[in-house]
Parts: sequence; structure tokens; C-alpha cells
Amino acid sequence: MLQICLICLALCFHPSHTISLASFPVDSNDHLRANQQRVENRILALAKYGKNKTGGTSRVAFSAADVEGRNFMIKKMQEAGLEVRIDFAGNIIGRRPGKFNQRNPILFGSHIDTVPDGGNYDGCVGSIGALEIMEILKENKVETDHPFEMIIFSDEEGGLVGSRALIGTLKLDALDLMSHSGKTIEAGIRYIGGDPARLPEVELSSDDYKAFLELHIEQGGILDTEGIQIGVVEGIVGIEWWGITIEGFANHAGTTPMHMRQDALLAGAKLTVAINEVVNSYEGSQVGTVGRMDVQPSAPNVIPGKVLMSLEIRDLSQEKIFKLFADIEEKAKVIAKETDTKISFELLDVSAVPAITDERIKKFIVQSAEKLKLSYKRMPSGAGHDAQDLAKITPTGMIFVPSVGGISHSPKEYTRPEDMANGVNVLLHTLLALDKKDL
Amino acid sequence: MLQICLICLALCFHPSHTISLASFPVDSNDHLRANQQRVENRILALAKYGKNKTGGTSRVAFSAADVEGRNFMIKKMQEAGLEVRIDFAGNIIGRRPGKFNQRNPILFGSHIDTVPDGGNYDGCVGSIGALEIMEILKENKVETDHPFEMIIFSDEEGGLVGSRALIGTLKLDALDLMSHSGKTIEAGIRYIGGDPARLPEVELSSDDYKAFLELHIEQGGILDTEGIQIGVVEGIVGIEWWGITIEGFANHAGTTPMHMRQDALLAGAKLTVAINEVVNSYEGSQVGTVGRMDVQPSAPNVIPGKVLMSLEIRDLSQEKIFKLFADIEEKAKVIAKETDTKISFELLDVSAVPAITDERIKKFIVQSAEKLKLSYKRMPSGAGHDAQDLAKITPTGMIFVPSVGGISHSPKEYTRPEDMANGVNVLLHTLLALDKKDL
Repeated sequence: MLQICLICLALCFHPSHTISLASFPVDSNDHLRANQQRVENRILALAKYGKNKTGGTSRVAFSAADVEGRNFMIKKMQEAGLEVRIDFAGNIIGRRPGKFNQRNPILFGSHIDTVPDGGNYDGCVGSIGALEIMEILKENKVETDHPFEMIIFSDEEGGLVGSRALIGTLKLDALDLMSHSGKTIEAGIRYIGGDPARLPEVELSSDDYKAFLELHIEQGGILDTEGIQIGVVEGIVGIEWWGITIEGFANHAGTTPMHMRQDALLAGAKLTVAINEVVNSYEGSQVGTVGRMDVQPSAPNVIPGKVLMSLEIRDLSQEKIFKLFADIEEKAKVIAKETDTKISFELLDVSAVPAITDERIKKFIVQSAEKLKLSYKRMPSGAGHDAQDLAKITPTGMIFVPSVGGISHSPKEYTRPEDMANGVNVLLHTLLALDKKDL
Repeated sequence: MLQICLICLALCFHPSHTISLASFPVDSNDHLRANQQRVENRILALAKYGKNKTGGTSRVAFSAADVEGRNFMIKKMQEAGLEVRIDFAGNIIGRRPGKFNQRNPILFGSHIDTVPDGGNYDGCVGSIGALEIMEILKENKVETDHPFEMIIFSDEEGGLVGSRALIGTLKLDALDLMSHSGKTIEAGIRYIGGDPARLPEVELSSDDYKAFLELHIEQGGILDTEGIQIGVVEGIVGIEWWGITIEGFANHAGTTPMHMRQDALLAGAKLTVAINEVVNSYEGSQVGTVGRMDVQPSAPNVIPGKVLMSLEIRDLSQEKIFKLFADIEEKAKVIAKETDTKISFELLDVSAVPAITDERIKKFIVQSAEKLKLSYKRMPSGAGHDAQDLAKITPTGMIFVPSVGGISHSPKEYTRPEDMANGVNVLLHTLLALDKKDL
């Protein structure tokens, strides 16, 4: 810390430095920095809960490991001086009072539940990072104007359960769904200390928080590949899923001439290639994926009679998603004719509308990165996050740090300690700027 | 029969008829015809053994239903005056003596075992048809020069077990394989009255039979679509199987940009389309099929990291099969590069070399069809048959009758009674011609 402070002091006296930051408030907290070693240690400590043989973590929501991890976080949050509570949706919220406690608090945080056989960084970096900010503020006896609250959302990986409860979109029928823990979501919420019957009471209005910020690993490989330190998230993409059914006719692969076939797999293959071509034919960062393909009857000597495929399209513009789909549907008609098959699409009810982050908060993030001399890039989030729900009720921002090799949802998921610290520092200085500025 | 005989007699006195058949022996057996109703009744009677709810038959080799069906055949064969025996491989052989019993017998027949949930015609038409020929010869007190033997091969659908035993290619390790009955092939052979320990004793030499003929349903849709009554089989195609492994990298479908993907399914789709294009790019009746495609991990929101595919190519020329494969391998190299994946092929040890039927027997089949005023077409057999094994040790011929809609290995498999009778008649007159002619 001493070394950083000296550099910081030196910079403050440097004339060019003063000029370049003219538009940004330079105050007594500019020297604050994350304790990189503490962040790293806590990531590793949290990773012990649900650790599996692959080197990764299976800390699925509502499991015993999830509760152990949550208890670890609660203890550390209390040690950091926070007033901790669990809301009826099972979200853990830790409050640090401000100078003006009647003001709307500034909220930040992420989640600590993982996918089955997941990694140690997805959600954890934003959760441990939020805790680190509370530690820094405490250590440096910083009194913020607004109350600061950190949050650990419940069951993010199972469908943004905690954040959906906060915005009132966690419906009764969703409570009956089975989670990876083997418990229904309703039983799971109860297991971690919530009360499903009182969910309506946690619903927030736009008057409850000043803003929300989430620090997260990118989960993709753009920052890592391009050597950029910070991602300034422009929004969380919308997602649409379709089920595709291709009906051909199963027949003997030896006795059916090529021109008499109704090969559902050939049709599925042509459609998969066409989907890729359509998605690549537009400028932008949209993605389209065929992730699932079930072939029936699936024998080397039988022409496939039926194929079930998935189609997922993601983009920041819902209009563009459906424009891409319309192009795909046109191609499918041609392919169905060519292959003498029937191709049908069913839009599945799992869509997420795009969530655009707040322009003013993005500006604060950019200014913080510049102040910290970190490289940054504006980019969409291709993955879903609790931030997409919070964006519906409060100005929201999101900060990415690099995922090595772009790997996530895997035991191989990794983010370097210095990148985690960079992310915490950008989050910290964005929060401090927000604390002083009106939105 | 009376009506047919009158027509036949009338034709014999017609001058043009006599001229057109100048090259074919016209003898006292020319009027012989199958009893269409009896053939149909026996097909339906045999179908009762292993009948399932779908309207089809599950009479897999070595099952109780198989034994019931075999006993039905043995009884009918004995009633037709045959001397019936079961050889050590479980093949049922029924002998009808000829005028010169020191001559090599003429062999004909097929199988009665089915695939699981199969139909009532595959194999059965040739078996009931062979029996019908023995009935006609008995009813008409025909004395052939050569002994006639009919055969019901054991376990055709499980890999030509009975016919492979006859040509000495049923190896010891094949006996340990599990059959659809739940018994190993060794236990199955024992169950139906064979003796696996004495298999070498059934091995035939080229001096044992004068010829072999098999009547069978086409199993494809060529005859039915083109309205042709008889298929003159030019040969049984060779078959090669490859296992294809495509290795990409499984990754998040939301966070991985299109240009950074290593999508194994996209590679598999491109390869499937390329295989189809290569196979269609040559003249001829070759077929190539991707019947199986397993995608891992197979989730809508994960880019597939691995694909396992099957490739099967069939043709009468083995050289052409490997030429097609070489073209496919070239295309695969380009696709692997385009998709940043690794594509590897493994030739599987299940190949069947092409078996070409005897030119002189084909001529007798054609002449019989012409005499019976039936339309015919020379064509390959895309499916494997016991005839492909017998062709290795004795001059072999094969006759196809139409499969309605080209459907086989299905409860929907159907061949019209008149088409079955046509096939029996062509087989009968081919056998009678063979009996009088040297090969």
C-alpha cells in the first residue's frame, strides 16, 4: 500500500496528470487500492466449499456446499463491519451506513453459487470483490455520503432466482422447478434461510437504490485475446431459444438410393451451416448457436428419420435477434424442399430481453479505468447476469475482467489475481465517484 | 391353376411365342406356377411367431419366437416331403432327391429371423418361396436331375451367422458377441439345435453345390417407384464403415464470439453436407450415409466441443468406395481448418467386400422373367444377404421383388402377394433351367 500511495502522490504533483483528470473529481480517496493478496486468498478459501476432484467446484445453489459458502461470506461480511441480513428470497445483503442514511443506498455484488462442475471465479470475483471494497472503506475509515450495500444473490446459475425476486418476476410456478441441488426452488429458498411465502415483500421499486454495479469475469475470450484489462459492459444481451424439429423418413441406408432419401440429419446439417452463415452475415457482436442435436434412430446403417435441434440467438437488440431468425426461417424452407423433409420451429419460453446499462455509470467506469491507467473496451455481456434484472429498476453498470482462454463454467476457469484487483479498483472508484455525483 | 395352364397351352401354340423363346428350353414344366394364396397364408402364419403390438414382428435370432418360427418351417418342409436336418451352425436344410443324386445339389433359400420390431417379409419371402417351390415340385411330381436343397440360414440379421459358418468365416471371437436375444451367438447356436464346437464341419467347398439362389424383397423403393416386377441382382454391395471424431472446444454460447469458436457440431454439419455432395458427384448407384451423430455436451447454450459421427459407404466396387472416401478426407481437411477443429477417421472392422453374382445365372433369371412376361431391372443389392457369403464358394444368383414404399426393417414392410408369387415363379423357372444346363 505504501508504494502505491507514494506513486499516487507523485502523480498528483505531475502537471500533465492534473490536466488529464480535470473532469474527474480528485479527492482524498484516490489512493485507495484493493489488497490483491487478500482477494486471491479469499477466492481460494471460498473454493473449498464444494471443491471436487476435477479441481473445480460444484457449489450448486441450495446445496450443503452453497450454505457453507454463504456462511463463510456472512462471517467475513460481519467481520468487515457490515450489518448482514438474509432477505425472503435468500439474498445476503450487508449494509454499511453512509453520512446521509436517508439517501438511497448504492448496491453492488454478485453471486457465489456455481454450475455443476464449474469453476472458482464466475460470480465469486464480484462477491469477494464487493467484500474487498467494504474492507478498504473500513480500513481507511472512509465515510461515504450514501449507504453502501453489498449483495450475494441467491441461485444465479439456476435462473437468476434472487434478482428476479427483487424485481417481482419470480413467479409462483417457477418455485416448483427442480434445481441442481435436488430441491425445488421453493424448498431451496427455505433451506438457505428465505421464506418463499413472503417473496412479494422483497420486491424493490425504482426508489429503493441509487444504482447497482456488478463486477464479473468476462466468461469469453475477447479481453484475454486482445490483452485488455477492463470490459465496460454496454448491456446484457437478449436471448431467444427455439426448438427445431426435422421430420424425414428413417430407411435402410443400403437399399435407399440417394435421390429417394428423406434424410433428417442431412437437413439438420444444412440448417446448422445456414444458421452459422446467417449469423455471420451481419455486422455486430450477435451470436447464434446450435448446441444440441439429437438424431433418431442414430445407427450407422439407417438414414435418420428425425432430428431435434436447438437454436439460440443472443444480441443487445431484440429486433436484430428476430431479423436473424426470419432469415434462418427462409433458409429452412429451401432446405426442407431440397431434402424432402419437414422443418418446424418452436419459440421456447425462456427468453431474456436485452438489458442496456446506464450511460452515466459507463462513463464513471471509463473514467475510473483511465485514472487507474488500465486499458478498457466497451463490449456486450453475452452471458446472463443478475445485473440484467436490476437494470429494470435502477441505473446499472457492469465491469468485466479477463477470463484466461475465455473458459468458464469449467474447472479450467481462471482469472489472474492482478486482473481481479484491477476490477475491484475500477469498481471501487466508480462507486466513490457515484457517491459524490447525482445521476 | 387351371386358367394359367390354359393360357400357357394357348401361348405354346402361338407362332410368335415359339420364336421369341427359341433360345430357352421349352419343356413340360413351363406351366408350373406358385400358389399365390398359399404363399400369402404362410407368410401370415409365420408372422404370428414374435408378432408385436406395432403390427410387426420381433423374431430376433435365438429367441423363443425364432425357435417357434423354425419349428413351423421344419414341419411344413417335412410335409412337403423333404428330408430335414439342422446343421451345426443351426441352419435348417431340407433335401429333395433328384434323378442323379451323385450330382451337386442346387441350393436356394433365405432366413426367417428379423430385426427387433421388424416386418414380415424380409427373409420370409425367400424362405416361404423356397418351400413353395418344393410344394410345386411335389404336387406336380417333377423329378429334377439334381437334388434340390432349401435352406433357412440361422441369424442373418445378427451378421450372416449361418452363411458365414458355411464359408468358414465365422471366427471364434464372433461367437462371444451378444445377440439381440440376450444370448451370445455361441449360446444361441446351441439353443436352436446347433453345436458351436463342431462348426468347422459345416464348412463348404466349391465342390459341394452346383449353385445358390436367393429370393428376397428389395428393401429399397426402386422397383416399387418404377413399377418393375423383378430385380435381377448384379451383386451385393461392399460396405465400409468409419467412425469419425471431431474435436473442437466446448465453450459458453453467449460469451464466445463467432470468430473465436471451435464448434465441433458446425464442423460435423459441414462434413455431413460434404459427404452427401461427394457421393452424389459420381455416376452410379453408390450410397453414403451419416446415420449417427452424437454431440457433446449437447446443451442449447454450450458450443459443442466434441462430435462422434458414423460414415457408411456402399458400392459394388470396393475401389470406388475408397475413391469416394479419399475425396471425403480431402474435404474434411478443409473443414477442419475452417472450423479450427480436429477431424479424424477410423476404418471399422465390419467391412463387407462386394459380391458379384454369376453372369450365367443372371441370364437364366432374365430369361425366366421374360418367359413369365414380367418386367425386370438389373440392380445392385444395397443390403447385405447370405447370398454374398455363398457367392464366395458357388455360382450365386439373387432375385428381388418390390417392397411397397421401399420400407423395410419396419412393421410397415410390405410386399404384395402377386409380387411374391412372381418372385417364386422366376426362382422356380430359373432353378428348372439351371437343373438342365451346365454352368
